[in-house]
Amino acid sequence: MSTPNASSPPGAQANALLKRHGLRLDTFLVEVIRRAAQAPPRLLESMEYSLTAGGKRLRPALVLECAQACGATDDSPAGRSALAAAGAIELIHTFSLVHDDLPAMDDDDLRRGRPTNHKVYGEAMAILAGDAMTTVAFELIAADASPADVAIRLVAELAQATGPEGMIGGQVLDMEGEGKNLAIDDLRRLHAMKTGALLRSACRLGAIAAGAPEHKLTAVTDYGRHLGLAFQIVDDLLDVTSTPEQMGKATGKDAGRGKNTYPALLGMDASERAARDAVDAALAALAPFGPEADGLRDLARFVVERQH
Amino acid sequence: MSTPNASSPPGAQANALLKRHGLRLDTFLVEVIRRAAQAPPRLLESMEYSLTAGGKRLRPALVLECAQACGATDDSPAGRSALAAAGAIELIHTFSLVHDDLPAMDDDDLRRGRPTNHKVYGEAMAILAGDAMTTVAFELIAADASPADVAIRLVAELAQATGPEGMIGGQVLDMEGEGKNLAIDDLRRLHAMKTGALLRSACRLGAIAAGAPEHKLTAVTDYGRHLGLAFQIVDDLLDVTSTPEQMGKATGKDAGRGKNTYPALLGMDASERAARDAVDAALAALAPFGPEADGLRDLARFVVERQH
Repeated sequence: MSTPNASSPPGAQANALLKRHGLRLDTFLVEVIRRAAQAPPRLLESMEYSLTAGGKRLRPALVLECAQACGATDDSPAGRSALAAAGAIELIHTFSLVHDDLPAMDDDDLRRGRPTNHKVYGEAMAILAGDAMTTVAFELIAADASPADVAIRLVAELAQATGPEGMIGGQVLDMEGEGKNLAIDDLRRLHAMKTGALLRSACRLGAIAAGAPEHKLTAVTDYGRHLGLAFQIVDDLLDVTSTPEQMGKATGKDAGRGKNTYPALLGMDASERAARDAVDAALAALAPFGPEADGLRDLARFVVERQH
Repeated sequence: MSTPNASSPPGAQANALLKRHGLRLDTFLVEVIRRAAQAPPRLLESMEYSLTAGGKRLRPALVLECAQACGATDDSPAGRSALAAAGAIELIHTFSLVHDDLPAMDDDDLRRGRPTNHKVYGEAMAILAGDAMTTVAFELIAADASPADVAIRLVAELAQATGPEGMIGGQVLDMEGEGKNLAIDDLRRLHAMKTGALLRSACRLGAIAAGAPEHKLTAVTDYGRHLGLAFQIVDDLLDVTSTPEQMGKATGKDAGRGKNTYPALLGMDASERAARDAVDAALAALAPFGPEADGLRDLARFVVERQH
C-alpha cells in the first residue's frame, strides 16, 4: 500500500498515507456519531464539531498501519476490528483535547485553527461532549470488533492507556508539575503517560485487532514507545519555533505557563538529537517486519520532519 | 438471601440488603482504584474521595440482586462478572455526580453531606477524576468479567446506557430544558435518559452477567424501567419536602433553577400516585420470578418509601 519512492520529497509518503486514512476516518466518525439517532441533536453537533476539526489522525493511522503490517486486510473481520479501534482512539484523543482546552484546565480559545469546543457550545456542553466521546469509543469497539475475545482485549488496552496510569494520569502529572523544575526522568515519565500511552496503544490496538503473534505485538509496542517519545520532543520544539498560524493553536505558551519541556531541560540541540535517536530506535524495532511495515517507517520519519 | 419478614418495619429488608451490598462495594471499589498502582496518588485520592462518600449503592445492588434472581452465585464466574458490572456502574454513576456538581454544570458545594470533589481537589482534578472513573469502569469489566462474549455485552450495555442516548444525553436535555416549560412527555423522556437509563441498565447488567434467558432479561428490563420512573418522581418530591440535612445536599433548588419536575407539572398528589403506580408496575414485571427476586421486590418498595 505504501511503496517507498526515492524520488518523492521527504514526508510525501507519510502525508499521502495520513490523508488516505484521514479521509476514511472522517467519514467513519461521522457515521459512528450519527448512530446515536435518539441523542439530543446539539450534543451530537458539538461532538462532530471537534471530531471533524481536521486533525492529523496520527493515532488512527498507526492503528490501521500496524494492523496491516500484522496481516489484516480492510474487508476482513480483523480489518473491521482495526477500523473500530482506530475510530475509538480518535474519539478518546479528541475527548482529551476538548477537556484539556476547558477554562479550568489549559483555558485555550483556539484548536486546529478554530474556536475550541467550549467557546462555541459552552463549558457544560463541552464537558458532556467529551464524556460522551469516551463512552461512544467503548461502545464502538463492542459493536464492531470481533471475535469477542479480541474485542474485550481492545477494550482493556484502550481503557488502560487512557486511564489513571495512562493519558489522564499524565495530564495530572503535567498539571502538578507546572511551575516546578522536574528532573528529566520525571519529564520522561510524564510524557510516557500523557502523550506516549495513547500513541503506543494505537500500535498495540492494531496488532491485537489483527490477531498478531506475541513477537510482533512486542515489536510494534517498542516502535510505538519510541515514536511517542520522538513525537513529544518535536511537539515541545514546535511550541518554541512555530507560529500560531502553522500550529492552528496558541504557541510559546509552555514557557509562559512554567510547563516542563525538553528544550527547557536539555536545550534545543540536545532535544533535536534526542528526537532523531528516538525515531532511529522506532525504525530498529520494526526489524521483524518487511515492506508491509513501510507505512510505519514513513510515519516515524514524518514525526521528526513535521512542521505542525 | 432476602426472606420477607412481616414483622419487620417497612424498608427494613431493603435497608439490610443495601447495607450488605454497600459494604461489599465499598471494599471492592477501593481495591479496584488501588489496582492503578502507577497512577498519581492525588488522582486516586480524589477518585476514592467521591467513590467512598457513602452513597446508597442502589445501582450495584440492582446489578447483584438481578444476577442472583437469574441464578448467579457469588463465587461463580457469573457472580464475579456481576460484581465487576456492579463496580463499573457505580464508577459511572459517581463520575456523573462529580461532573454534574462542577461550577460549569449545577455548581453544587455539597454532596452526600460532604464538600463536592472540586471544592476539595479543584476543578481540573475533578474533571480528570470523573474522566478516569469512566475508563476504570470499562477496564474493570474487561479484566474481571467472563466469558469474553458476556464481558463484551456488558461493555456494550453500560456504554449505551451512559452515552449520548442515555445518561449523558439526558443531562443535555435537562440543561436545555431549564427555564422552559416542558410537556409531561418531554419530562418523561428526559428522566428515562438521565436517571432511568442507568437504573434500567443496572438490572440488565445483572441478568447479562448471569447468562439469563431472553424472557428473564425482558422481565428485569421492564422492572428497571418502571423502578427508574418511580425513583425519579420520588427524587423530585423529596427535593420539595426534605431538608438539606436529610438529603446530604442542597434541596429546593429545582424550583429556583426553573428545572422541570413532576410536582411542578402534575402537582404533589398526582406525583405521589404516579410513583406508587410505577412501583406496582415494577413488581408486576417480576411475575416470572419466585422468591429469588424478593430482594428486587424489597428494593422497589424502598424506592417510594425512602426519606433521602
